[in-house]
Amino acid sequence: MKLRKIAELVCGELDGDKDIEILGVKQIEEATEGYITFLSNKRYLKKLRLSRASAVIVSDDIDVEIPKIRVKNPYLAFAKILKAFYPEIEVKRGVDKRAVIGNGVKIGEEVAIYPFVYVGDDVEIGDGSVLYPFVSIGNGSKIGNNTIIYSNVSIYHRVFIGKNVIIHSGAVIGSDGFGFVKMDNGTHQKIPQVGFVIIEDDVEIGANVCVDRATMDKTIIKRGTKLDNFIQIAHNVVIGEDSVIAAQTGISGSCRLGKGVTIGGQVGIIDHINIGDNVILIPQAGVMKDIESNRVFAGIPAMDHTLWKKTCSAIPKLPELIRKVRKIEKGLIQMSEDKKSD
Amino acid sequence: MKLRKIAELVCGELDGDKDIEILGVKQIEEATEGYITFLSNKRYLKKLRLSRASAVIVSDDIDVEIPKIRVKNPYLAFAKILKAFYPEIEVKRGVDKRAVIGNGVKIGEEVAIYPFVYVGDDVEIGDGSVLYPFVSIGNGSKIGNNTIIYSNVSIYHRVFIGKNVIIHSGAVIGSDGFGFVKMDNGTHQKIPQVGFVIIEDDVEIGANVCVDRATMDKTIIKRGTKLDNFIQIAHNVVIGEDSVIAAQTGISGSCRLGKGVTIGGQVGIIDHINIGDNVILIPQAGVMKDIESNRVFAGIPAMDHTLWKKTCSAIPKLPELIRKVRKIEKGLIQMSEDKKSD
Amino acid sequence: MKLRKIAELVCGELDGDKDIEILGVKQIEEATEGYITFLSNKRYLKKLRLSRASAVIVSDDIDVEIPKIRVKNPYLAFAKILKAFYPEIEVKRGVDKRAVIGNGVKIGEEVAIYPFVYVGDDVEIGDGSVLYPFVSIGNGSKIGNNTIIYSNVSIYHRVFIGKNVIIHSGAVIGSDGFGFVKMDNGTHQKIPQVGFVIIEDDVEIGANVCVDRATMDKTIIKRGTKLDNFIQIAHNVVIGEDSVIAAQTGISGSCRLGKGVTIGGQVGIIDHINIGDNVILIPQAGVMKDIESNRVFAGIPAMDHTLWKKTCSAIPKLPELIRKVRKIEKGLIQMSEDKKSD
Repeated sequence: MKLRKIAELVCGELDGDKDIEILGVKQIEEATEGYITFLSNKRYLKKLRLSRASAVIVSDDIDVEIPKIRVKNPYLAFAKILKAFYPEIEVKRGVDKRAVIGNGVKIGEEVAIYPFVYVGDDVEIGDGSVLYPFVSIGNGSKIGNNTIIYSNVSIYHRVFIGKNVIIHSGAVIGSDGFGFVKMDNGTHQKIPQVGFVIIEDDVEIGANVCVDRATMDKTIIKRGTKLDNFIQIAHNVVIGEDSVIAAQTGISGSCRLGKGVTIGGQVGIIDHINIGDNVILIPQAGVMKDIESNRVFAGIPAMDHTLWKKTCSAIPKLPELIRKVRKIEKGLIQMSEDKKSD
Repeated sequence: MKLRKIAELVCGELDGDKDIEILGVKQIEEATEGYITFLSNKRYLKKLRLSRASAVIVSDDIDVEIPKIRVKNPYLAFAKILKAFYPEIEVKRGVDKRAVIGNGVKIGEEVAIYPFVYVGDDVEIGDGSVLYPFVSIGNGSKIGNNTIIYSNVSIYHRVFIGKNVIIHSGAVIGSDGFGFVKMDNGTHQKIPQVGFVIIEDDVEIGANVCVDRATMDKTIIKRGTKLDNFIQIAHNVVIGEDSVIAAQTGISGSCRLGKGVTIGGQVGIIDHINIGDNVILIPQAGVMKDIESNRVFAGIPAMDHTLWKKTCSAIPKLPELIRKVRKIEKGLIQMSEDKKSD
Repeated sequence: MKLRKIAELVCGELDGDKDIEILGVKQIEEATEGYITFLSNKRYLKKLRLSRASAVIVSDDIDVEIPKIRVKNPYLAFAKILKAFYPEIEVKRGVDKRAVIGNGVKIGEEVAIYPFVYVGDDVEIGDGSVLYPFVSIGNGSKIGNNTIIYSNVSIYHRVFIGKNVIIHSGAVIGSDGFGFVKMDNGTHQKIPQVGFVIIEDDVEIGANVCVDRATMDKTIIKRGTKLDNFIQIAHNVVIGEDSVIAAQTGISGSCRLGKGVTIGGQVGIIDHINIGDNVILIPQAGVMKDIESNRVFAGIPAMDHTLWKKTCSAIPKLPELIRKVRKIEKGLIQMSEDKKSD
């Protein structure tokens, strides 16, 4: 692809030889002759100078010899170029005859239903959606348009999934919430989990994620939210729009998260917690209290991020601190004894 | 359903209009006219007064205007009413011809074996059990009566599952324990994992749980224990009766847990630990020593819960404490210098 | 099996009755008459004296009355004997006609492809490999010789797996890396994940593990590394040879781990971290900085193991320490007031 064409693709301003042939895109460290790279952070300018890339996408005018394409967001331009160079993997459209389709199922246009897909009764599948092998969809569930569900995903009954959703392999949507009544004899009686699940448009759900159905009412993941792998979403949780949650995080029953929330990996949130908009949680935090909008929290139990940073550097000093205090105590006892003997 | 009938169902004492028509059950916040709600905790009495529910289930005589049903355990009554209002999802009984059934398999009465189920040789499946699509059962395993196994569950060979068990999608039962011998050249030689797994009656296993088989002998989860999603049960673990374990907890090899144990989410227990009956572990605890019966533990490394609470409120004070001690030290040095100069 | 034959099998030196008939192998606590056991650690010598085992495998000359087989590594001998007593589970060789095989697929000799396996186009499967039911393999992927893939494993397109690999049920290899560009309006634009995955020879991957494909280039797990269940390997991670990682650990994007690394359960490593050879990470550690070779780290944030041990015993003393310092402060104020009044 000519550099000129790439500049058009990313709506960028080209400075340099327009006719260079670009073979692909690579990160700064790996880029060699013929490849375009991108500078998303000025910290890597030094690396860029050492790079053998033939062109670079930048956000500001920087002083490098190779041709530049200037854009507002080089990382976004990178995403666009990747898409251009690597066409999406080919999908076999149609409903394979080795799939099992239940009664009363409505299937849209241009879908791809692979062999060994199981679709229960009264399911709706929107136009252009793709169901890979070993996907199971329970009775009465709905899949919107252009949604991709990878192999071995289990969708229970009454799960309502929007359009442009991506669900990776091994995810489970609509399993029972974890609710029991403790009886006098110590046994646990199951509370029927009769609610449902809503996954709104543009959500991405990572591999082996679990989203439990609500006890009553609904568990809901709102538009544009992205979940990494192994995330636990318990019954009746609400996650706001455009949130991003990293792998192995667990959100307990009935938590309500605002929009634009960012959560690191292995975070835990106990049940019935409210978290405001645009909150950021640092990896491995343990949240046990509500958090207001726009706060950054970290640690177990979670505290303000700046305080947490201080405690992090303080904790390794603790053994030394204990020694110091012991020394001070002895010194004071000595002083008071000296005084008495005076 | 008439309120009178609901009172009968939950064996409760009705105070108010017996003939109100009840449309369903809802939580206090959501309940509207025509719905019954329940008060499990007096803390929510204020909410109840604001609720538009048409009836309420309570444990004590409380002063509200709407009709009341008095029962010993409102939460249990709630579970019963849910069951009455929401009939269980319909199951297609019979052995689907698109399932694969091995040699020497014994299948009980009234089972439901869905399309795309794989049953290995010499397996037994009890009366009334349900195997959803993409369930795989290895050679020689047994499933008791009235057990439900949701889609995409993998059960290896020689796994013995009791009756009234529920296993949610994506769970893996009987995978190899994690055991290797380190060789002189740094490589790791696999130790054959030749043991088996027992899941006793009335156990519930959450989505994407793993229960490894024993190296030798058995891994066992005893009667009535409930596991949430993403729980790791390593080889040779024993979990006692009626225990409840929340999501993302990991229990390492050869741990022995008593009965009635309650474990929060994201807890980790290192290998060969003994935990007594009725122990409670707070979420995110890290257990590195045995714990006696009836104790409540928390923190990393796990300590008594009351001590942990104190350390939790102490840790954020640590940076300030370090400053204080530094100040005291300086003060003391000053004092001792003042003394010398006296 | 005669004891003499067992001694030959493990290349050991037999001291005692060569002709005893051995029925099997058991751990010290469980071993009864007719069984052989092993002593891997002298700590258990006392238990051995109480054991009713008929023979024992030891590394040193110890003073016990029952017949002994002396070997260099009793644990390895144990593994060999287990293998001899418990033959591997029988596998049905051949390509089952109820499997779906894509176009251009190359299948080696003596493979076992079970019913309900889905193999995409242009896949290669090496000699002697086993694919259990509900395994899905994406277009262009390769499986080496004698590799075992258990049921419900999802392998995406362009995943390259070596020989003698074992992948347990529910594992997902090649799902998209977690990468998005945040737009001005708060939404997140997906970055195409166009890289691939390499799993080298002799790797074992636990149940429900996730290995994400690289954004560009590759995610790679090198020869002989063993992963326990529920491990998250993010995009572009490199894990060196002969490493061992315990369950529920998460390794974030672009981390590079050396060879011979040992990681405990529930460890978290943030993105772009470099970890040297033979590093040991204690369970539940949170790594936020690079770690040099041969170090042992623990805690959140991870610190040197010996320091961590000290802080672990210091933390429960913190509430008491705060009280002490408060007392000292009061004492000093009193002293200074006494002085003034002097």
